[in-house]
Amino acid sequence: MKIIKETATAIKELDKSYFEKAQERLDSLTKPRGSLGRLEELAAQVVTIREDLAPKLDNKVIFTFAGDHGVTEEGVSAFPKEVTPQMVFNFLNGGAGINVLARQAGAEVAVVDIGVDYDFEEAEGLIQKKVVKGTKNMAKGPAMTREEAEKCIEVGINLANDFADKGYNLFGTGEMGIGNTTPSSAIITVFSGKSAREVTGRGTGIDDEALENKAKVIEKAIELNKPDANDAIDVLTKVGGAEIAGIAGLCLGAAARGIPVLIDGFISTAGALIAYEIEPKVKEYMISAHKSVEKGHEIMLERMGLRPIIDLDFRLGEGTGAAIGMAIVESAVRIYNEMATFAEASVSEEE
Amino acid sequence: MKIIKETATAIKELDKSYFEKAQERLDSLTKPRGSLGRLEELAAQVVTIREDLAPKLDNKVIFTFAGDHGVTEEGVSAFPKEVTPQMVFNFLNGGAGINVLARQAGAEVAVVDIGVDYDFEEAEGLIQKKVVKGTKNMAKGPAMTREEAEKCIEVGINLANDFADKGYNLFGTGEMGIGNTTPSSAIITVFSGKSAREVTGRGTGIDDEALENKAKVIEKAIELNKPDANDAIDVLTKVGGAEIAGIAGLCLGAAARGIPVLIDGFISTAGALIAYEIEPKVKEYMISAHKSVEKGHEIMLERMGLRPIIDLDFRLGEGTGAAIGMAIVESAVRIYNEMATFAEASVSEEE
Repeated sequence: MKIIKETATAIKELDKSYFEKAQERLDSLTKPRGSLGRLEELAAQVVTIREDLAPKLDNKVIFTFAGDHGVTEEGVSAFPKEVTPQMVFNFLNGGAGINVLARQAGAEVAVVDIGVDYDFEEAEGLIQKKVVKGTKNMAKGPAMTREEAEKCIEVGINLANDFADKGYNLFGTGEMGIGNTTPSSAIITVFSGKSAREVTGRGTGIDDEALENKAKVIEKAIELNKPDANDAIDVLTKVGGAEIAGIAGLCLGAAARGIPVLIDGFISTAGALIAYEIEPKVKEYMISAHKSVEKGHEIMLERMGLRPIIDLDFRLGEGTGAAIGMAIVESAVRIYNEMATFAEASVSEEE
Repeated sequence: MKIIKETATAIKELDKSYFEKAQERLDSLTKPRGSLGRLEELAAQVVTIREDLAPKLDNKVIFTFAGDHGVTEEGVSAFPKEVTPQMVFNFLNGGAGINVLARQAGAEVAVVDIGVDYDFEEAEGLIQKKVVKGTKNMAKGPAMTREEAEKCIEVGINLANDFADKGYNLFGTGEMGIGNTTPSSAIITVFSGKSAREVTGRGTGIDDEALENKAKVIEKAIELNKPDANDAIDVLTKVGGAEIAGIAGLCLGAAARGIPVLIDGFISTAGALIAYEIEPKVKEYMISAHKSVEKGHEIMLERMGLRPIIDLDFRLGEGTGAAIGMAIVESAVRIYNEMATFAEASVSEEE
């Protein structure tokens, strides 16, 4: 808990003077003011987070946290639980969606076992940080102990520090865990006070009957465990997941180190939301990459005041939206760094 | 006119069997079906356009057509007309927004003088295809002669053929022309039957009074010239522009050669719309890259049934939205080509 508190305390408010200096440069570039819309906002945000008037984003990494979920016993997912470790091997072999999109974005993928119910041998590229062998079934009791939840957050914080030390300057989040839209929906149900039915979606593609069941399972888990909405770690403990906790820690660690972090879709945003409920200042360091098809996602984003960059109807997770978003954030920073000014190009300004 | 007719006639209906084969492969990849949303649609569209079950998009070019507009006499733009040639030099020197974003996308920029009111000397990278030295003021008479409009379309068709012959396999459109939101707004006014006020926006950033004036200028031009909505070339002649015509030709040429073409924002879509009104089949070869801030843009897209990939509040033109869109289309095709199948990765399928 000490590391979590220290990290949250280390998150600074952004120095607005960097925003102003960034906007001044953006306004001097050969284009009508503001005409590159969100790219300009993203560039100014990166300048301010990095406190660097010529920021480089040359070392990019997407963290794909993997964990299993005891609640799959309740029939909440269209895929069997074995798919979590199978997909971890797919990540390590470079064959998954996130591998392809990260290659396209020029980003590395850091695959983290934080809670998979499978004993991996040592494998190249696999970061072994297992805290639990899957969570417990939240429909029957808390998903984890408080100590486990805190340990998972610390894994995320430590990874942020390790990669910051190695010179990475742009992070993305991602995850894999069959069943993990259920804890994510439960988390936003608790914080929003809405009913589970209002925030629950089809995940990887369940039918009407299974959707009905999923919402009921979430209601039951909340009734049984009574998570305290004023204590984010209690919510995480009772209805969360290991990979969600890891993402929360990564967000806190990134912010404490002044590194922008691209938040992938629904499950990643559940992790980001936990971080935000622990320390709201973390939000200024986050960039929401994409709008997920899952309906609870928008409610999470509204709560934090984040606006996603793209809307491509994704519902895959893994960090795939973060990878696409990274390319756009990199474009934004290149616009800021590389475009000619009106003076340099001898172009007349507005009349 | 002969080339235009021949090109339009050469555009084939898409062979739907390629869509089905592409979808079959997409469904075999290690992800829930359809979970990469629009990337999957884009991949299937490219496979079908190329008639290639393993398409490559390794040669990308964005055509930035430049032209001037006599209607700037009426005070419709926030920038002086001299900015058109100044920006052409900026393109050639690599300092403009489109240069930066094309570098990021790994695309070339082909800068085409099709109608600038300036005598360029020979310059490296400048494609000299001048048809007019700026259009005439459409508030006082037709912007061009019909012969000029047709010649501009032919420039676009010939460029499409030249670059197809050289092995380029993905095109993007772009433009530069102070004043060119005015002809673009006029074009959609004519085709939609809406009032100029309903479709006219602020272009590079004019104030309320200038916006009012701009809408009036458009109404006046339409009243005076009486463009025939059933004759797209008549519309282009009377209230269009050289770069808009060039883009129309490029779209027709791309479709005739089976090359997907990314359509940039408002002005590019005006060009695409002219192509569509000449031959509706051309639309199947188009990908709308982004949603412009200009309000007439959405009306154009609705008319053609196109849905933009991204919405980043751009209003710059040049091909900047097409460049961002290209990276996403390339991602889509890489997903299709590079992801592992369930069988290859030994991952269990849906239950």
